[in-house]
Amino acid sequence: MYPKALKDLMDNLEKLPSIGEKTAERLALYIISELDREDANLMADSIKNAIDSIRPCKISNILTDQEISPIVLDETRDHTTIMVVADSKDVFMMEKMGTYHGDYHVLGGLIDFSRGITDNDLNIESLTKRINSDLKELIIATNGTVEGELTAQYLKSLYEEKQIKVTRLAYGLPVGTDLRYADVLTLIKAVENRQEY
Amino acid sequence: MYPKALKDLMDNLEKLPSIGEKTAERLALYIISELDREDANLMADSIKNAIDSIRPCKISNILTDQEISPIVLDETRDHTTIMVVADSKDVFMMEKMGTYHGDYHVLGGLIDFSRGITDNDLNIESLTKRINSDLKELIIATNGTVEGELTAQYLKSLYEEKQIKVTRLAYGLPVGTDLRYADVLTLIKAVENRQEY
Repeated sequence: MYPKALKDLMDNLEKLPSIGEKTAERLALYIISELDREDANLMADSIKNAIDSIRPCKISNILTDQEISPIVLDETRDHTTIMVVADSKDVFMMEKMGTYHGDYHVLGGLIDFSRGITDNDLNIESLTKRINSDLKELIIATNGTVEGELTAQYLKSLYEEKQIKVTRLAYGLPVGTDLRYADVLTLIKAVENRQEY
Repeated sequence: MYPKALKDLMDNLEKLPSIGEKTAERLALYIISELDREDANLMADSIKNAIDSIRPCKISNILTDQEISPIVLDETRDHTTIMVVADSKDVFMMEKMGTYHGDYHVLGGLIDFSRGITDNDLNIESLTKRINSDLKELIIATNGTVEGELTAQYLKSLYEEKQIKVTRLAYGLPVGTDLRYADVLTLIKAVENRQEY
């Protein structure tokens, strides 16, 4: 019933999270009949540009459009502290908070045996490489879930003999929820009250 | 804070209706980090393809990827009845209903003096061209709003001397709402009970 090009657009939009059939239909019709032609082209280009240019930083695995994330290169930041997070989204969210000025390392997930995800699937080797005598603190900022806790404990035990200070975000985080659903104040609290293992 | 290509993508997604800053952020992060690269490319291509290939039918103004909409060319349909609607979306919705087998004409809007939209801004000349001695009925299926009613009355008076049967969708439609929010049963009722002016 719909012209094929329009149906294709709907089907493709429906691949996005929380975009159902009705919403995809509404968005597709808006794109072809109400959005400026130029804006629609920009939208398509920005999708391609984003997937082409954004990749993990070679050092920290933070998603970036550079070789190395500007955060890792930023000389005004404290690189003797590394916050370990599961995902680049967590970095972006922490940066919104604006009170943390150290470095980051993105694991690319959490240990989850039920889904077959082990330490080998995470960016742990690259983290180990970054741990040297200059490092003062490793803040483990994984989710307050079973997987987050398990990953934190694994890292703690892995670096036990390195004699570095390993801390964990305080349980200001609501237990059992995803890091990225926390509000800013809760997060600030969680960073302030981070506790040494 | 976000890599530029990612921020651009968020800004572009935010141009869509009911996509706010938070949702645009979530969708953009999903596109770059969770969606298959191929699917993301397909999505971008389908936006370009849709805006490049979909245009109004030269006869009926129904959005189509052909010169002439397949509905207008379909020999199994009754072309002696033309349903006049404001928008191609209304055609797609009527087609979902599946009980109407006549032709359509898309006005491209409704008369709305408060927004400076007059009969000259609508596809009325092309509608007049389609009115010939073969035409048995013109069903005016504009919204049950002031503008819809005004446009209906304008068309009725315009074609008065042509001695064609002009009908209007029955007020099974809830008064004062947009056609496209009506449910299928209400619509079927409204088509069945269409009334002659």
